[in-house]
Amino acid sequence: MAGRPAGTGHFERPQLDEVIKKRFFYGPSFDIYGSVSGLYDYGPAGCALQANIIDLWRKHFIINDSMLEVDTTCLTPAEVLKTSGHVDKFADWMTKDKTTGEIFRVDHLVEEVLEGRIRGHREATGVKVEAVEESDEKKKRKKKVKSIAAVKLDEATLEEYESCLAKIDGYSGPELGELLVKYDIRNPANNAVLEPPIQFNLMFDTQIGPTGQFKAYLRPETAQGQFLNFAKLLEFNNSRMPFASASIGKSFRNEIAPRSGLLRVREFLMAEVEHFVDPNDKSHDRFDEVKETVLRFLPKQTQLDGKTDILEMSVDEAVSSGMVDNQTLGYFLARIFLFLQKIGIDPTRLRFRQHMNTEMAHYACDCWDAEIHTTYGWIECVGCADRSAYDLSVHAKKTGAALVVREALKEPLVEQKWIPQINRKDFGMKFKKDAKSIEAAIEAMSIQEKEEAASNGCINVVGQSISPDLVKLELKEIVSNIREYTPNVIEPSFGIGRILYSVLEHAFWCRPNDVERGVLSFSPVIAPTKVLLVPLSGNAQLLSLLPGLSAKLRALEISSKVDDSSAAIGRRYARNDELGTPFGITIDFQTVEDGSLTLRERDTTKQIRAMESEILAVLDDLVRGRVAWSDVLAKYGEFSSTEA
Amino acid sequence: MAGRPAGTGHFERPQLDEVIKKRFFYGPSFDIYGSVSGLYDYGPAGCALQANIIDLWRKHFIINDSMLEVDTTCLTPAEVLKTSGHVDKFADWMTKDKTTGEIFRVDHLVEEVLEGRIRGHREATGVKVEAVEESDEKKKRKKKVKSIAAVKLDEATLEEYESCLAKIDGYSGPELGELLVKYDIRNPANNAVLEPPIQFNLMFDTQIGPTGQFKAYLRPETAQGQFLNFAKLLEFNNSRMPFASASIGKSFRNEIAPRSGLLRVREFLMAEVEHFVDPNDKSHDRFDEVKETVLRFLPKQTQLDGKTDILEMSVDEAVSSGMVDNQTLGYFLARIFLFLQKIGIDPTRLRFRQHMNTEMAHYACDCWDAEIHTTYGWIECVGCADRSAYDLSVHAKKTGAALVVREALKEPLVEQKWIPQINRKDFGMKFKKDAKSIEAAIEAMSIQEKEEAASNGCINVVGQSISPDLVKLELKEIVSNIREYTPNVIEPSFGIGRILYSVLEHAFWCRPNDVERGVLSFSPVIAPTKVLLVPLSGNAQLLSLLPGLSAKLRALEISSKVDDSSAAIGRRYARNDELGTPFGITIDFQTVEDGSLTLRERDTTKQIRAMESEILAVLDDLVRGRVAWSDVLAKYGEFSSTEA
Repeated sequence: MAGRPAGTGHFERPQLDEVIKKRFFYGPSFDIYGSVSGLYDYGPAGCALQANIIDLWRKHFIINDSMLEVDTTCLTPAEVLKTSGHVDKFADWMTKDKTTGEIFRVDHLVEEVLEGRIRGHREATGVKVEAVEESDEKKKRKKKVKSIAAVKLDEATLEEYESCLAKIDGYSGPELGELLVKYDIRNPANNAVLEPPIQFNLMFDTQIGPTGQFKAYLRPETAQGQFLNFAKLLEFNNSRMPFASASIGKSFRNEIAPRSGLLRVREFLMAEVEHFVDPNDKSHDRFDEVKETVLRFLPKQTQLDGKTDILEMSVDEAVSSGMVDNQTLGYFLARIFLFLQKIGIDPTRLRFRQHMNTEMAHYACDCWDAEIHTTYGWIECVGCADRSAYDLSVHAKKTGAALVVREALKEPLVEQKWIPQINRKDFGMKFKKDAKSIEAAIEAMSIQEKEEAASNGCINVVGQSISPDLVKLELKEIVSNIREYTPNVIEPSFGIGRILYSVLEHAFWCRPNDVERGVLSFSPVIAPTKVLLVPLSGNAQLLSLLPGLSAKLRALEISSKVDDSSAAIGRRYARNDELGTPFGITIDFQTVEDGSLTLRERDTTKQIRAMESEILAVLDDLVRGRVAWSDVLAKYGEFSSTEA
Repeated sequence: MAGRPAGTGHFERPQLDEVIKKRFFYGPSFDIYGSVSGLYDYGPAGCALQANIIDLWRKHFIINDSMLEVDTTCLTPAEVLKTSGHVDKFADWMTKDKTTGEIFRVDHLVEEVLEGRIRGHREATGVKVEAVEESDEKKKRKKKVKSIAAVKLDEATLEEYESCLAKIDGYSGPELGELLVKYDIRNPANNAVLEPPIQFNLMFDTQIGPTGQFKAYLRPETAQGQFLNFAKLLEFNNSRMPFASASIGKSFRNEIAPRSGLLRVREFLMAEVEHFVDPNDKSHDRFDEVKETVLRFLPKQTQLDGKTDILEMSVDEAVSSGMVDNQTLGYFLARIFLFLQKIGIDPTRLRFRQHMNTEMAHYACDCWDAEIHTTYGWIECVGCADRSAYDLSVHAKKTGAALVVREALKEPLVEQKWIPQINRKDFGMKFKKDAKSIEAAIEAMSIQEKEEAASNGCINVVGQSISPDLVKLELKEIVSNIREYTPNVIEPSFGIGRILYSVLEHAFWCRPNDVERGVLSFSPVIAPTKVLLVPLSGNAQLLSLLPGLSAKLRALEISSKVDDSSAAIGRRYARNDELGTPFGITIDFQTVEDGSLTLRERDTTKQIRAMESEILAVLDDLVRGRVAWSDVLAKYGEFSSTEA
């Protein structure tokens, strides 16, 4: 493919938004009911684009690495998400304007107001503000904001604001509350003082069954369903480690204030990998295949310094220097990069940002986000977290299930271990049917916990306090031939909607000779439709050739679309440039005579002419990326239509 | 493919259940938390089977008929489902045992108790009860039921029970309540009298946003999302009619008492088509392609007579006799049949049952279910309803959106029409911003409603009562060049989980020489894995050939799996027979010498031997259904391994 010509990168977002709407890539759900913020429906073009991205994802990740795909439910019992920590911690901080009832997400408000003040300062000092960085929503809100004016700030304040913004994802709720006070941040619309921040849980809740007593949530991620099936998956994999599971499905987050189109929504498609690995050995046997890949890193220390400078280095260097913790994490960062590049993300507008310790999700011990640059700024599109043994451990502890790997040792291992001595009779009498799960929970205690319990003379587990006359912990020397461990989890997690939107932005440009004519330069592999069939006119002879050609393309599994409307041929092609259709076949009177067809390429608008069978073979190669358009053009020569 | 050999159809369900569990096709969700009834997770094999069924569905329906695929949200505002009728009518009838708090779904309870009594009668009269028809759940419950004994019934009662069971899906709530009394149906466990039936709405509810004020439901079907996008889709289709949209996605129903595995669940994958058609012309331009297809019908009159006799006839006959209302409905019944046959449903265990008027969903005006026979009895797997103009009309009326088709007429049409004469000034003053939508709602009133309003002298619309001094309706002669109409909708709606389970049952059999060895005879197109690669032993030379072969299969897009475990080769094949893998390639020492491979077919267990490139070409043809195994075997001759 030719791709977007150099120098056509800049565009105004409203122009792209218009194409997205007009060609129905997606639109607000429940539009005729006034729509609901944060919910979007995909039309035929968006749906096909999404399906192609997912298909490529499945091949690039699941098939390439023989991952075990699972499909688990969205409905999730409250108990599961209580255990995973989501009921207590999966929340954002909100603040209310008591006078109007308006609710703000605190970190977004702080960001917006401080950015506004910096902009005001720049205006006051005569620096031009970059338009591209500013979103529509912000522009709209800016109009409402009274306090933003061209006010000069002193150097120290300016630096403080900038440093605060660089760290904005890392503040706790109380810290955000302090920022509201310290920087006197109020409701921008009416200058009212805001309430101290409170937590708002982001999960949608419901009840299962007719009793109204069984509380459940819609899952906020697909990960938990994979963890809960760990034992079955390990068995399916013939107990071999390491292995990965993967899942593609909807997740739900009740955002306080959805914004920025597909970038912050309440229902979205995720694709997640959970790679289970030995905590003592996070090497990856295919690391060598990707180690030369050069990525653009933004490590946590740079951000803590209030900076955003990019560090370019190979994954190999990043891992061996210790900046990226281990090979498996490094392997996935490289694979994520290759995937994003394949679907059309501009690699110069992609960076890997490390989470700061304060911003990390409650389960993560290291995390890198693949961030893509768009007109909304840098957008987190893929998270790649090392969740350690967190999830498997908490679920095992809660349920007594053995979410562990048992590995035969080559040499026996001699260890000091705390062994529970159980008074079976009394223990069984006291706990009855719970006895088994309590015993499992004791087994699952960490060494530290067992040590403490032994010195306290009392075991506290799953809400039970167990005295030494029932269970005593004794330190014994154990010789084992089996090593038992809880795997760690490396999790690449993809927000498909955000990626899809970024692909749209990176593919969009306007014909330099006609800025009204937008083009979406999708690579053929993800383009919703691969080829447009255009009869030159409504003549019956021309139309009669369409069904046969369509059937041949269907047999080749090349998706095609007919445009036999009465619009001029140029207009029909322009319409399909906006749909990102990479190729077009024209059927004209010459076709009726000799069976030859013209094939047009979207980005160059150049054509070749050849016999049908040859055109189909060329198209098959082009669509599957086996040949480039420039080579095709060189081979057949450019054809200049005399008819069109 | 050879398929399941004749005479191997009978099996005990526990044996299949064991394979489903052991090979992790699917299993109860949240298993380690004690599981939740009606929720299931798909493991790798089930997930791939599901993906292949969906892929075939997409090709068979969406691509073959150029349907417009959309992907809409699960979260749905309460207002939308209030308008569609689901808030008021999408409910089942439940009854409670006050003494224990136990809740029963009334129609299921009546069914179970009456079937039990009939069984008791047969036992008393010495007729053997067929085991296949009885489900595990029923067997379990039967044990609990005290009142079922071998009691003889008189002829009249027996007939009454059987007639009642044939009509069981058609009773209203109060009628079910009368049946409880009339037949003295009580809680089978303790003989307690049950409360009168009350309605239980089957939708899961939640709230959107941080206020807690915005009520929403999880969609019970994907259809509404398609209807709401009708205007955008019509525009996308260049305003041409008829056309169809389609959607594949999760839906949710809060079943009172889920049962029968995948057959009645609370969260499930649906695939739905909404075919929009002119109410005056429900012909279909591809009807001729399918009209000779012979289907097995169970029309409503047969059921009203308390019978279940099947009527076999071609779709052409069924439509021309008026039994099936129109060509479009007939077209889809035939296409549904062809799809189900393609994925491996036994056509002799498939019937199309017409809904009785009393059982039809609130939106339907005619409906046929594709029912598949399984060990649970006849299961509704696909519904094919004519929803008439119901949905588009109610949403248009509620919102004022124009969900209509405008068609240029060849000859002008002269009609008597009720035209609203609006006192613009007063009307605008009274209704302000609502004026526009109220005007639209008046326009959207039916002829009957307008007639009534004109004679009453008052228009009642969207909760407003509008007096003649604001709007007067006048009957005028209108000459129009445009015909405006609300399309009717024909909806084929597929429950993928039920179909997937039926496919498992129809594919399952046991080797006659070894009843412990189950086989799933999936057709290659839907088999989770197409080919198993089996090195004869763990010898390094053999293993070194695997990656190259895997890569070649990947390039051909043939999904493969390696089994290099130390198990005997026969055991490895047996394991994969249970996974339904149709082909196996053995790599042995001959392969190292001359590059030849053996190819084994699952159902016959016969093998051929040829060079790698030839084996790959044959496999490509087999997997894509271009050649049958019997032809391959005839061409190459059976190879008898001397090594295995």
